[in-house]
Amino acid sequence: MNEVRLGIVGLGRLGKRHAQNLHYRVPGANLVAACSVVSDELTWAKDELGVNKTYESYDDLLADPEIDAVFLVSTSSVHAQQIKAGLAAGKHVFSEKPMGVTIEECLDVEKVVAAAPDLHFQLGFVRRFDPSLAYAKKKIEEGLIGEPFLVRAQTVDTDEFAEFQIKFVPTSGGIFMDMNSHDIDLARWFIGSEIKSVYAIGGSYVHPGFAEVNDADNTVALCRFEDGKMAVISASRTAFHGHDTHTEITGSKGILKIGMRANKNRVEIFDSVGARVECVQDFYERFQEGFLLEAQSFVKGIQSGEKPAIIAKDGTKATEVGFALTTSFKEKRVVEL
Amino acid sequence: MNEVRLGIVGLGRLGKRHAQNLHYRVPGANLVAACSVVSDELTWAKDELGVNKTYESYDDLLADPEIDAVFLVSTSSVHAQQIKAGLAAGKHVFSEKPMGVTIEECLDVEKVVAAAPDLHFQLGFVRRFDPSLAYAKKKIEEGLIGEPFLVRAQTVDTDEFAEFQIKFVPTSGGIFMDMNSHDIDLARWFIGSEIKSVYAIGGSYVHPGFAEVNDADNTVALCRFEDGKMAVISASRTAFHGHDTHTEITGSKGILKIGMRANKNRVEIFDSVGARVECVQDFYERFQEGFLLEAQSFVKGIQSGEKPAIIAKDGTKATEVGFALTTSFKEKRVVEL
Amino acid sequence: MNEVRLGIVGLGRLGKRHAQNLHYRVPGANLVAACSVVSDELTWAKDELGVNKTYESYDDLLADPEIDAVFLVSTSSVHAQQIKAGLAAGKHVFSEKPMGVTIEECLDVEKVVAAAPDLHFQLGFVRRFDPSLAYAKKKIEEGLIGEPFLVRAQTVDTDEFAEFQIKFVPTSGGIFMDMNSHDIDLARWFIGSEIKSVYAIGGSYVHPGFAEVNDADNTVALCRFEDGKMAVISASRTAFHGHDTHTEITGSKGILKIGMRANKNRVEIFDSVGARVECVQDFYERFQEGFLLEAQSFVKGIQSGEKPAIIAKDGTKATEVGFALTTSFKEKRVVEL
Amino acid sequence: MNEVRLGIVGLGRLGKRHAQNLHYRVPGANLVAACSVVSDELTWAKDELGVNKTYESYDDLLADPEIDAVFLVSTSSVHAQQIKAGLAAGKHVFSEKPMGVTIEECLDVEKVVAAAPDLHFQLGFVRRFDPSLAYAKKKIEEGLIGEPFLVRAQTVDTDEFAEFQIKFVPTSGGIFMDMNSHDIDLARWFIGSEIKSVYAIGGSYVHPGFAEVNDADNTVALCRFEDGKMAVISASRTAFHGHDTHTEITGSKGILKIGMRANKNRVEIFDSVGARVECVQDFYERFQEGFLLEAQSFVKGIQSGEKPAIIAKDGTKATEVGFALTTSFKEKRVVEL
Repeated sequence: MNEVRLGIVGLGRLGKRHAQNLHYRVPGANLVAACSVVSDELTWAKDELGVNKTYESYDDLLADPEIDAVFLVSTSSVHAQQIKAGLAAGKHVFSEKPMGVTIEECLDVEKVVAAAPDLHFQLGFVRRFDPSLAYAKKKIEEGLIGEPFLVRAQTVDTDEFAEFQIKFVPTSGGIFMDMNSHDIDLARWFIGSEIKSVYAIGGSYVHPGFAEVNDADNTVALCRFEDGKMAVISASRTAFHGHDTHTEITGSKGILKIGMRANKNRVEIFDSVGARVECVQDFYERFQEGFLLEAQSFVKGIQSGEKPAIIAKDGTKATEVGFALTTSFKEKRVVEL
Repeated sequence: MNEVRLGIVGLGRLGKRHAQNLHYRVPGANLVAACSVVSDELTWAKDELGVNKTYESYDDLLADPEIDAVFLVSTSSVHAQQIKAGLAAGKHVFSEKPMGVTIEECLDVEKVVAAAPDLHFQLGFVRRFDPSLAYAKKKIEEGLIGEPFLVRAQTVDTDEFAEFQIKFVPTSGGIFMDMNSHDIDLARWFIGSEIKSVYAIGGSYVHPGFAEVNDADNTVALCRFEDGKMAVISASRTAFHGHDTHTEITGSKGILKIGMRANKNRVEIFDSVGARVECVQDFYERFQEGFLLEAQSFVKGIQSGEKPAIIAKDGTKATEVGFALTTSFKEKRVVEL
Repeated sequence: MNEVRLGIVGLGRLGKRHAQNLHYRVPGANLVAACSVVSDELTWAKDELGVNKTYESYDDLLADPEIDAVFLVSTSSVHAQQIKAGLAAGKHVFSEKPMGVTIEECLDVEKVVAAAPDLHFQLGFVRRFDPSLAYAKKKIEEGLIGEPFLVRAQTVDTDEFAEFQIKFVPTSGGIFMDMNSHDIDLARWFIGSEIKSVYAIGGSYVHPGFAEVNDADNTVALCRFEDGKMAVISASRTAFHGHDTHTEITGSKGILKIGMRANKNRVEIFDSVGARVECVQDFYERFQEGFLLEAQSFVKGIQSGEKPAIIAKDGTKATEVGFALTTSFKEKRVVEL
Repeated sequence: MNEVRLGIVGLGRLGKRHAQNLHYRVPGANLVAACSVVSDELTWAKDELGVNKTYESYDDLLADPEIDAVFLVSTSSVHAQQIKAGLAAGKHVFSEKPMGVTIEECLDVEKVVAAAPDLHFQLGFVRRFDPSLAYAKKKIEEGLIGEPFLVRAQTVDTDEFAEFQIKFVPTSGGIFMDMNSHDIDLARWFIGSEIKSVYAIGGSYVHPGFAEVNDADNTVALCRFEDGKMAVISASRTAFHGHDTHTEITGSKGILKIGMRANKNRVEIFDSVGARVECVQDFYERFQEGFLLEAQSFVKGIQSGEKPAIIAKDGTKATEVGFALTTSFKEKRVVEL
């Protein structure tokens, strides 16, 4: 199969990891270009990965005819615009979530994607590529737990960075937009229909600073799907044990739980505090295999022409439900979609 | 200390177990009388436990001056009335939950209890006596997890009896009244304040018969406390692994989870289906130590004159929140208390 | 059934617990007498449990015609003699392990027991009454794991008392005699045949004082049964997490593991050290249900005349294998029985 | 750093996986050549991985000056000879275990390795690269469990292939040589000294065919180190739950256990058989990350000139102890090394 020549856009912490995956571990991928407004990041790409083409401007990168695909790990607020420009320039596009920060942006992207049926567009809902969550999905499709009707999904971050995050609330869109988009996507994926109404509660139980910017540090929400099925979606910024994103799917014949103890590895420690496992500390430690598999899926999708499993509508729905949750929380009422 | 002479009222499945505990395993207790409208049950009490005084009428039992306390394991609908009559007759009273099936009944009981300060009244919120839940409470009071702000509590029953239960919905009051009263009580106990608003969803995902009587086989609810703290309360009648009542308390410094795998015992089985534990199959298997400890606490409370930890108001609140959950579910709206 | 009138002998820490079980929780038992050379212990029995007959002399207790059975929780070195005297006096006898501290003593007891077929004799291999180990036995008998051929059994104590125990080595008989008798019994019970050869190694890895008295603080031993089956038996006096007595039985179709994490209860703690359970801290915390069930079994056995499951030969074998392990360890060679 | 040009030797099941790792996922590696006597395997290398140089003869491969290193995944019986020839030809050498099938072969390899200090030689004790076992090692070096003095290590394979393996016993060297070499290596690695005496028992409990060729399907062995520390090493060919290679290290301050439930992934299943995890099914599923990390370590070692962590002596010792265990089992006696 033909090699896919890629340009990565954004080389922050996660961008660097994507770049390393694309360079070292994705069959068929050739990371030929990098784009960033931070010159140190471009230097890193050149020195560490031998990426020869470096661009400060996204437009210049798009103008390069020797690039087949762009891999967007840029700031959330520019995703929609960069996706559209990328497709317009005839590039395949991978974008980190969110697809857009407004519903209008998302719907716009949906249209542009629909108008470019020969280009591969994939959105970074990485958890769908996590081996454990993918295994759960496969088992459900095989009928192991019968018909799924309830999903519980949570994203829990360590307390360490909570105070620091308070200042980003205005741009991140708040806890539901920032932390629950993957949970929303998983709930839709496992249930297989659309969320019709939501109700969210929460508070600033540990860091009052979140309340001051009309946000929360811990939240829980109920979602009702159009066919009456349910999801419980929660978020916490204040854990001490680690990054904890467990997911639980209840069906008519059984239950699957994924990631309940957030184990760092297979080591158990027996000492004066009892019998314990240490936990993963951040989303990358938890989902590193997923990040690799999603990049491999993107490149293989371009080569094979197979339609991506995650489509633009998934991005729109995650944003839409995120807004509904935020509204419900702020207005203390059930919100219908 | 003086021996406490008890009369048990109701000798169904749970009543028999209470009777055995009182007869064999509660220091200071002397089970002298039994009351039931089912003559076989009285015969059982006589033959198995040597209970000599048997009554078909509760009034006759109350008239017996050689009985210090009554232990009510009768039908829910008569609890309030029997509590009041018992206290009026000068007996100490233990009653299984619920305290009453209407809020009026509960408030009535509260008044009667308040008017009899020398009599010991204890309500059967058995989970507070479960060694694991009690240990969690103690650890929280010691500060292990900081300030608790979120409780998740669930009651899950096996699917085996679901179809059978459909016909009892009209008298049981539905899934929230029937299954969540302990969860409501635990949430209040761990959070330490009162629930102000609730929102519940659910459906008949496995047994359509529940929908036909305007009930559900699986539900989830969000509760907001007056100080903004949260509880997620859920119920399921359709589990295949066993009776599963786990509880989770999140605080500002850590999380406690109680009963996450519902282990039957300490045995792990490694065979062709993987590595597994078998699960407890019903509430009695799960809470048998709690049932014993609550009976011991009742008798000790009578002897010592110490105020019971569980008071009439706890019973009222459980009923009140149960009604609010039911209303929320049926009317699909947030209900304020 | 007739009430069984019991006299307890020895009221140290474990004796007190046995006494409380017999007084409060064993149907059919009437604890009427206590015997101890420590007057405080007799006072305790009188004050706490209302035991009216107190004896400083075991012979005097045996002379009391209103006692049906003796319950020996005395010093190991007097067990054999007290068992024989008890049976000679026509009393049913329960004795804590070991049955004797020499093989001669054990064989002697076997003879005396055989000569008194109408008296009930039961030895305190309490682990056979542990609900989890008993459940494992039942499942094996039902064929769940096929034919068992390998048992791993360990007794692990906390380090806290290790230094203190060094001075008792001369009387306790050393680590194999002191700590492994239950493990030996479990291995024989699960495998169902007799140990023919043993090989033991060990050392004083934490407390050099054990080496000075020719003992060890940690040991492991291999046992080969007469039919070629195997056991791995180990002991440790130096654990920091708790008392840890797990047992593992491998069969031709599966494996059972009992007590692998030594959980104190059903509580899991998630905090800055990870996700953990606390562990049981001593043998009584681990086996309290077993202690109750074995006392109930003893009394029920007397009433029903059913032969006890644990017989004198079990006591002899535990002592015999314990000696063989000690010899193997000291002489660094395989010892044939 | 300079790219390392590699030739792989042997492309059976494990060889193919090593080849894929070297081609796709090892920074700095260039898999330029493949050697096999099976022409299909060479076709596979060409078609799947674009390996242009294919050799039927190992000597021809060694004669190629454009190859820097050989990666041996050939039959055990030719390892020693191929290692020596590779080093003699001036190539860096990675070899799968065992280093040799006789002690003489191993000592010979040690000499040749010592005589080629500028060439990188690494032996495939993959478990040392497993993230969990490596994490345990790191924690021990940091002092988490004090001084380690007891290692339990086991290799357990599924029953599925047991019957099939009986015919390979004559060439594989039997269960201790075939299955325990990694366990021996781990025990030496964690304890940090050499094994001085061993005692092994076992039997053919499930497949009598093993006994007929003087081998066993399940074994357990005790190893005493020169400083008196201990290891328990066991093997089973008859598991039904999966491939189970757990390792446990006891130290003076705590215990580490690695891989106790052999979880396939992070999914827990709750259904009619209880609460369970599925288990990994073979060594590759368990150690796939280790295989990748060891290949990366090999290439990085060549580039950096750093001495490998696993040296020729480690290979000799594993073989030596494997022979001692076999002798002990066959002759039913303690064997001194």
